[in-house]
Amino acid sequence: MIGRLTRPPHPVLFALLYEPPMARAHKDVLPYLLPIDAAHVVMLAERGLLAGAAAAAILGVNQELGDRLERGDDVLDVPAVHRGVYFVYEREYITRLGDTIGGAAHLARSRNDINAAIARMRLRERLAALLDRLAGLVDAMASRAEAHRQTTMSGFTHMQPAQPTTLGHYFAGVTFELLRSIELLDRAYDTANRSPMGAAAGFGTSFPIDRRRVAELLGFAGVIDNSIDAVSSRDFAAHVLHALAMLGITLTRLATDLQTWSSVAYGFIGWSDDFVSTSSIMPHKRNAFVLEDIRGHAAQPLGALVATMTGMKNVPFANSVEVSAEATSHLWPALDATATACELTALLVANLEVHPQRAREFAAASDTCMTAVTDALVAEHGLAFRTAHEIVGRAIREGAGVAPEPLHVRIERGLAEATGATRAVAGRVLVQALDPDACVRAAEHGGGPGPDSVRAQLDAIAARLDALRDRSRERRRDLLSSTERRRAAAAGIGRAAARRADRDVPNSV
Amino acid sequence: MIGRLTRPPHPVLFALLYEPPMARAHKDVLPYLLPIDAAHVVMLAERGLLAGAAAAAILGVNQELGDRLERGDDVLDVPAVHRGVYFVYEREYITRLGDTIGGAAHLARSRNDINAAIARMRLRERLAALLDRLAGLVDAMASRAEAHRQTTMSGFTHMQPAQPTTLGHYFAGVTFELLRSIELLDRAYDTANRSPMGAAAGFGTSFPIDRRRVAELLGFAGVIDNSIDAVSSRDFAAHVLHALAMLGITLTRLATDLQTWSSVAYGFIGWSDDFVSTSSIMPHKRNAFVLEDIRGHAAQPLGALVATMTGMKNVPFANSVEVSAEATSHLWPALDATATACELTALLVANLEVHPQRAREFAAASDTCMTAVTDALVAEHGLAFRTAHEIVGRAIREGAGVAPEPLHVRIERGLAEATGATRAVAGRVLVQALDPDACVRAAEHGGGPGPDSVRAQLDAIAARLDALRDRSRERRRDLLSSTERRRAAAAGIGRAAARRADRDVPNSV
Amino acid sequence: MIGRLTRPPHPVLFALLYEPPMARAHKDVLPYLLPIDAAHVVMLAERGLLAGAAAAAILGVNQELGDRLERGDDVLDVPAVHRGVYFVYEREYITRLGDTIGGAAHLARSRNDINAAIARMRLRERLAALLDRLAGLVDAMASRAEAHRQTTMSGFTHMQPAQPTTLGHYFAGVTFELLRSIELLDRAYDTANRSPMGAAAGFGTSFPIDRRRVAELLGFAGVIDNSIDAVSSRDFAAHVLHALAMLGITLTRLATDLQTWSSVAYGFIGWSDDFVSTSSIMPHKRNAFVLEDIRGHAAQPLGALVATMTGMKNVPFANSVEVSAEATSHLWPALDATATACELTALLVANLEVHPQRAREFAAASDTCMTAVTDALVAEHGLAFRTAHEIVGRAIREGAGVAPEPLHVRIERGLAEATGATRAVAGRVLVQALDPDACVRAAEHGGGPGPDSVRAQLDAIAARLDALRDRSRERRRDLLSSTERRRAAAAGIGRAAARRADRDVPNSV
Amino acid sequence: MIGRLTRPPHPVLFALLYEPPMARAHKDVLPYLLPIDAAHVVMLAERGLLAGAAAAAILGVNQELGDRLERGDDVLDVPAVHRGVYFVYEREYITRLGDTIGGAAHLARSRNDINAAIARMRLRERLAALLDRLAGLVDAMASRAEAHRQTTMSGFTHMQPAQPTTLGHYFAGVTFELLRSIELLDRAYDTANRSPMGAAAGFGTSFPIDRRRVAELLGFAGVIDNSIDAVSSRDFAAHVLHALAMLGITLTRLATDLQTWSSVAYGFIGWSDDFVSTSSIMPHKRNAFVLEDIRGHAAQPLGALVATMTGMKNVPFANSVEVSAEATSHLWPALDATATACELTALLVANLEVHPQRAREFAAASDTCMTAVTDALVAEHGLAFRTAHEIVGRAIREGAGVAPEPLHVRIERGLAEATGATRAVAGRVLVQALDPDACVRAAEHGGGPGPDSVRAQLDAIAARLDALRDRSRERRRDLLSSTERRRAAAAGIGRAAARRADRDVPNSV
Repeated sequence: MIGRLTRPPHPVLFALLYEPPMARAHKDVLPYLLPIDAAHVVMLAERGLLAGAAAAAILGVNQELGDRLERGDDVLDVPAVHRGVYFVYEREYITRLGDTIGGAAHLARSRNDINAAIARMRLRERLAALLDRLAGLVDAMASRAEAHRQTTMSGFTHMQPAQPTTLGHYFAGVTFELLRSIELLDRAYDTANRSPMGAAAGFGTSFPIDRRRVAELLGFAGVIDNSIDAVSSRDFAAHVLHALAMLGITLTRLATDLQTWSSVAYGFIGWSDDFVSTSSIMPHKRNAFVLEDIRGHAAQPLGALVATMTGMKNVPFANSVEVSAEATSHLWPALDATATACELTALLVANLEVHPQRAREFAAASDTCMTAVTDALVAEHGLAFRTAHEIVGRAIREGAGVAPEPLHVRIERGLAEATGATRAVAGRVLVQALDPDACVRAAEHGGGPGPDSVRAQLDAIAARLDALRDRSRERRRDLLSSTERRRAAAAGIGRAAARRADRDVPNSV
Repeated sequence: MIGRLTRPPHPVLFALLYEPPMARAHKDVLPYLLPIDAAHVVMLAERGLLAGAAAAAILGVNQELGDRLERGDDVLDVPAVHRGVYFVYEREYITRLGDTIGGAAHLARSRNDINAAIARMRLRERLAALLDRLAGLVDAMASRAEAHRQTTMSGFTHMQPAQPTTLGHYFAGVTFELLRSIELLDRAYDTANRSPMGAAAGFGTSFPIDRRRVAELLGFAGVIDNSIDAVSSRDFAAHVLHALAMLGITLTRLATDLQTWSSVAYGFIGWSDDFVSTSSIMPHKRNAFVLEDIRGHAAQPLGALVATMTGMKNVPFANSVEVSAEATSHLWPALDATATACELTALLVANLEVHPQRAREFAAASDTCMTAVTDALVAEHGLAFRTAHEIVGRAIREGAGVAPEPLHVRIERGLAEATGATRAVAGRVLVQALDPDACVRAAEHGGGPGPDSVRAQLDAIAARLDALRDRSRERRRDLLSSTERRRAAAAGIGRAAARRADRDVPNSV
Repeated sequence: MIGRLTRPPHPVLFALLYEPPMARAHKDVLPYLLPIDAAHVVMLAERGLLAGAAAAAILGVNQELGDRLERGDDVLDVPAVHRGVYFVYEREYITRLGDTIGGAAHLARSRNDINAAIARMRLRERLAALLDRLAGLVDAMASRAEAHRQTTMSGFTHMQPAQPTTLGHYFAGVTFELLRSIELLDRAYDTANRSPMGAAAGFGTSFPIDRRRVAELLGFAGVIDNSIDAVSSRDFAAHVLHALAMLGITLTRLATDLQTWSSVAYGFIGWSDDFVSTSSIMPHKRNAFVLEDIRGHAAQPLGALVATMTGMKNVPFANSVEVSAEATSHLWPALDATATACELTALLVANLEVHPQRAREFAAASDTCMTAVTDALVAEHGLAFRTAHEIVGRAIREGAGVAPEPLHVRIERGLAEATGATRAVAGRVLVQALDPDACVRAAEHGGGPGPDSVRAQLDAIAARLDALRDRSRERRRDLLSSTERRRAAAAGIGRAAARRADRDVPNSV
Repeated sequence: MIGRLTRPPHPVLFALLYEPPMARAHKDVLPYLLPIDAAHVVMLAERGLLAGAAAAAILGVNQELGDRLERGDDVLDVPAVHRGVYFVYEREYITRLGDTIGGAAHLARSRNDINAAIARMRLRERLAALLDRLAGLVDAMASRAEAHRQTTMSGFTHMQPAQPTTLGHYFAGVTFELLRSIELLDRAYDTANRSPMGAAAGFGTSFPIDRRRVAELLGFAGVIDNSIDAVSSRDFAAHVLHALAMLGITLTRLATDLQTWSSVAYGFIGWSDDFVSTSSIMPHKRNAFVLEDIRGHAAQPLGALVATMTGMKNVPFANSVEVSAEATSHLWPALDATATACELTALLVANLEVHPQRAREFAAASDTCMTAVTDALVAEHGLAFRTAHEIVGRAIREGAGVAPEPLHVRIERGLAEATGATRAVAGRVLVQALDPDACVRAAEHGGGPGPDSVRAQLDAIAARLDALRDRSRERRRDLLSSTERRRAAAAGIGRAAARRADRDVPNSV
């Protein structure tokens, strides 16, 4: 029995709501509950709110359970009927240490702040891993962009050939959108990485605790100011999911382009047999089906975001299972799906086979240089851009038939009509303008595909990637040092208790 | 190697995309693939497209695998590297029966139509179970409505006391919205329950197959007319998810009301200790937290619906993993979440403790009868409704102070001012109007809480529930008889093959 | 002042919440409020709940306002400050007819049931128009499918060439998915088309009204059984939005295929200059940008669905602005967006230019007939399908180099290895199998592109389209006859009142 | 005719896709297009890419159009048929200045980068206004929190009374969640505030433009590195919508609590008559309906976010109407809805009437001090928390009957059983523990409601609000100075051209 309740949970409730979390407790709860408990007990002892000996005893069991958990052991002895993971966990201490010591730790705390802390620590761990993987994706994109800085291809707008660009320029462009989502995720880490401990049930405590110390011992970057906020809010889950969702949308756009360009009709790119599938019925098939799996996984976080936000809507701003357990539950599969989508994308990007000749030929054959021709008319003949655009547009229109006149003839006629003067469109200029590679080389301005331009873009990407990795390293260091600090403090409390125990036994040998 | 491919999947692909489905194959794929294969082979044999002996051999292995699967055995021998569940499954036959027979079944079919058929059969099974559970929920709601037809309480609008109603009337109202979603789900079953087999890769076949026969042997209600539609579309997943989502929204509304009314400030209802939780820190707590779990689970299908529809957006109308595997993947957890939400709701509704006295007192004390007073002025004194409404509104306003005059005095004054004549507001009429129970008894019109009115509503609910259960029974019968038909046909082919084999061995003893 | 309130709305509230609905009242409210009021008053008079003369006077004003509204007049005299459209409307009657008659109609009704009725009638009208437009879209699709039953093209899976099909077969396939959404919408019409009148504030009434009569006079197909349901539920808005959302998703898939096939790299289809745009900078551009507008509009209802369902989540099951006004507000722009997307799609489909030669050549050049070759090996040489598939797959692999051997040589070698016997692959068979047109003609089974098969599909589509149009006609008839019935009843009441007035004036000349 | 096109848009296209944007052009396009054009022309002139005289002429027209637009004039002469706003705008210049000058500005630019710049500038303006309004909301919340720092009320978890808190503590808690969303929005401003100009169609340009100068002249904080990114990406729309959506969710939680506490059963708070509505049928009604409007508006951005992200899904990473026009279209109504929800919330919060006595009485009567009693047993009697919790829980259980023993008797019995010793529970301690005000005063730790604790929270809020307002001021300054810089540069070019013109006319009088 707990508190005023006289009956255990109804069997159906137990089966649906108590057993599933318990089944996942060793993976999802204990790795965080154990350090939280230790940090809290250390702080209580340091503040004189818990006797040193009691604290030492509790920390001893905590350490032992932690060691066994790390070895993969089942550390909780789960009774047939119970009231949830926390009570089973606390019972472990009471069984070993007796009521007086085993039940003493739950001072100035509640499952409410503990659950909030668990969610934040679990998320922190998962985010750190994902951010590393995302850095890998950016790396893969940037290195392919580097490799294909000179791989001329048609750029597209509205799926129609537009102007010459390079595959490297394209990859750099997509990478910038990815980076913005990743940086948002990086910031969401900081929002999540604050300690709710001390909020207790949501109304703080009259015990003179030191919540900053607990935060420090758990590697949090700070505390949450207000105790109602600490237990009621899980907005960080939405922030993370949004960043994942937007990241996923970018991946769908990238995958769509890769699928188009690897389709037989385009044939600019492809993959070797270990990245494609065939058909059980159509023997000629080589399907880049992985791109569809990427898009499918990448679309999942948007659904999770909706479930999470809808799950928070119209919920009292107070501790509520609806928010603390239900709404955040969508976070974890979305993190998994994103990790898979990123890993698959990085793999396909890194192993891309490019057919530069085909890409270049398509660019040359699809009028993608007509803007360069127009620009040349402006630059060489001083035409207004709109006039030049009209002349070239008409020349293209007149070139549609079976045996059209040469382009320069058509342009010269337009030029004559527009300016009243007969001028020759210099062969060299036209040849230059009609060469996709030359167009690309010239497009050095406005963030275009020119080699120096893309070089500068890749430098910018590299700098932002470095910053991400620096922050990642720093965070890992912070977490490590908080673990060490926690262990040292616990050990200190243990040693002090042992000394006191020695002193208390005067005739000991 | 399969077809033109010379290499197995890359290890990362294998780990991320091939292993997970294989791990679930015995539960999610084989229970449907085995009957699909059997039905297809029976049809091929009946149409003379597969030799009887080969068909019999294949059906024999099929039967054996099915029997073992039912016993819970692992029936597939999964190689270290492979190209997916289907090829591993087919390999099983080739290993046992040789290339010529073991590889003969894949005629006029493809993984594309097979996967579509698996999704539909799996959904069918899950939907049937859910529909039964939903019938149970409606039953629980209706029976509580019946039990509380006379339990007077305040009705609310905008969370403020409105007019007297009964708990039974309220439950009936919610049940109607639930029923509309359930009936939509019931209809979605029919949309899903059509056979895609014969569509092959999406372009039909030149072999003169009989797809209606296959449909019949699998218990489908018909075939899908167009083969591209058959492999490309999974709209039924969206239809199902929409019905689940809307159902879930209704459950959140119900749970919100139940939580409000069970809060200490209202106290109309409650639950015994086996349905509530307490707090680890606040010993007085009795939390109806299950309602929050219900709302959390109930909000999930909306997220799944978004993920599914977004997953289908801008996908070519053709077979695509993005739609066939990814977009439908959100269906299964949403079905689970809905099942949990429904079971919890039915449990709480069935075990509701009602405090009728508190509910009635609140109704009496909160001016909920003032509309009845207004109506009485209209009926008894021939006032225009708006005039009566103004008189009563003003009387309430004037009753706000410390020691107000009696209500009838205030009303009579208003009446005098409005009509110019002094009239007594008859005591009996006012007493009657101010009695919430009497108000309820009188509200027999317009679908109100009057006992006959609610009686009629419950009859309507019962009729629709009966219709749902009839359809459910019918479907189960259809499935059972299709299984029998399939087995009989397979047995017939086996016997014919055995007879032929006997004939072909003239000198057998 | 209304009722107990002593002050008008705060100016900010007035500006944000009262003025915008009033600005739209003549378009969104009055066309429905006027008939609702008339029907209610007719019923009250028929039931003896309102004196004939009063009813006649009210109906006279109602008729006049209706006539003026139809002419486009502003019929409400809106005071500088008010409490919403309904009260301004009622005031019109009170001003003209005095308190006693002008304020008499609001008996046994409330803004709650009236608002529900307005929403349903407004939706009904919009849905009817949309369903007609959707019938037009289906018609356009079906007629293009008919026109291109023989237009051979490559079918695709995973964006790679798969097997030969026809443009007609493709259009038919998409049409089936469209039809399923349209039929769901058609059913949603029926769900919406039930009368909430009589529910009053949500608790019915003690006045012996006849709500079926009101329903009949408004053209509703029936009444809503329970009064709480009548005012609290707007699930029909979600049902409609779901059907629009799914319909939109199908349109995005169609538009994606059309954009791919009209891209320069494919070139199967296109549009004349009045359906494409060019670029302000790239003179060669011809962009089928309308397809992107279609997809954009088609994606909107999903957002509206989320807003609507989220808007209903955790709202008490009672009358609430959050549901009745806010959540349904997303319906109307979504209906507009869908109408636009459909009209644009129908236009592009109807004006599609097809380049059959290019489509056919691509099919022939992209190995799409290799399944037919495989089938031929099965049919002609009795191979197991898997064996034939392997032989063809390998032959394709071996055909990849610079100067490969002829296909039949490669196949014959595979055949020899597989069967141990040397067999010639008959030229005629291979030629036939490699002809995309012949493949299409043969694919008569399983819903494939064969001419008879598509014929049957188009017949099925036509039958369902006819059924939709029949229902549409029937509904329009029902609405018309309800209008006539309402007018006739009002006129009858007017005449009776006039007769009574005559009788009551004995000495009139 | 434009470019190669020979026909105007089809009338249906024109009506659906060309006319609506034109109708909004004076409000949504021209206020941004005019400065963009001016900045671009200034830069072209400064870089020698456009002759000074031509630039001066263009800038003159630009200035005039801008002046007239500011006065509310229609500045475009819209022909009956056209190809969109931009071409109509350019035509204005050509008409006035002739082909040679009027058509000269469109060098090294495209509608693609211009449209991106318009969207960013328009958003920037709207965001700045919204951020100011949000600062006002935070201010209103903080000032009410300040005012109610000592207003004791029951805190809740799971809608049941939990521990004493204050209304000020609650408001502070909600404000922190609001601030996090607002700060995200503030950051989204910076993401959006970068210039895409120079990207042209998405592929940069060979003309040696200075895009940083254009950015500076338009008040952008920098440029977008990559030209494909510049025209293809609208991720900032999703980032903004996410922040709005999360902000909205917080508002729904706040409004839900306010509605609960203002419901008759709670009665902690309320509003005067100008903030509530009554009923057309129920004369006693006072409905805080505005809270439902707030929740409805606040839920809209989530739908818009879904529409926007879904709208971007699977779109080629290239300029596309689907992203640039369609997906961003959901942004504007969501900004409106958020502005309304915020203004209404600030209004209701600022005008809240609080009933402190009722709130305090409820807290005292609902066992909210039982945790304090438990804490006192720990502090005074050295019990383990769990033991104390059990003792109090049982005492509450035993206090349920009709005439229970006094609380201290029940506790002392539990104490005796747990410790084996008889101890008196000191009257003073118990009285203190049972006083909600004392509980609140003591809860100074862990972010609780103690006065110093809330003081510190409000200081933190004030500091963050100041930072937001500083950034807002700074941005406004930046925009102003960019406008001045642009005008000065234009004027300089005008003067230089005039000087040159003077010099060029040697014999002028």
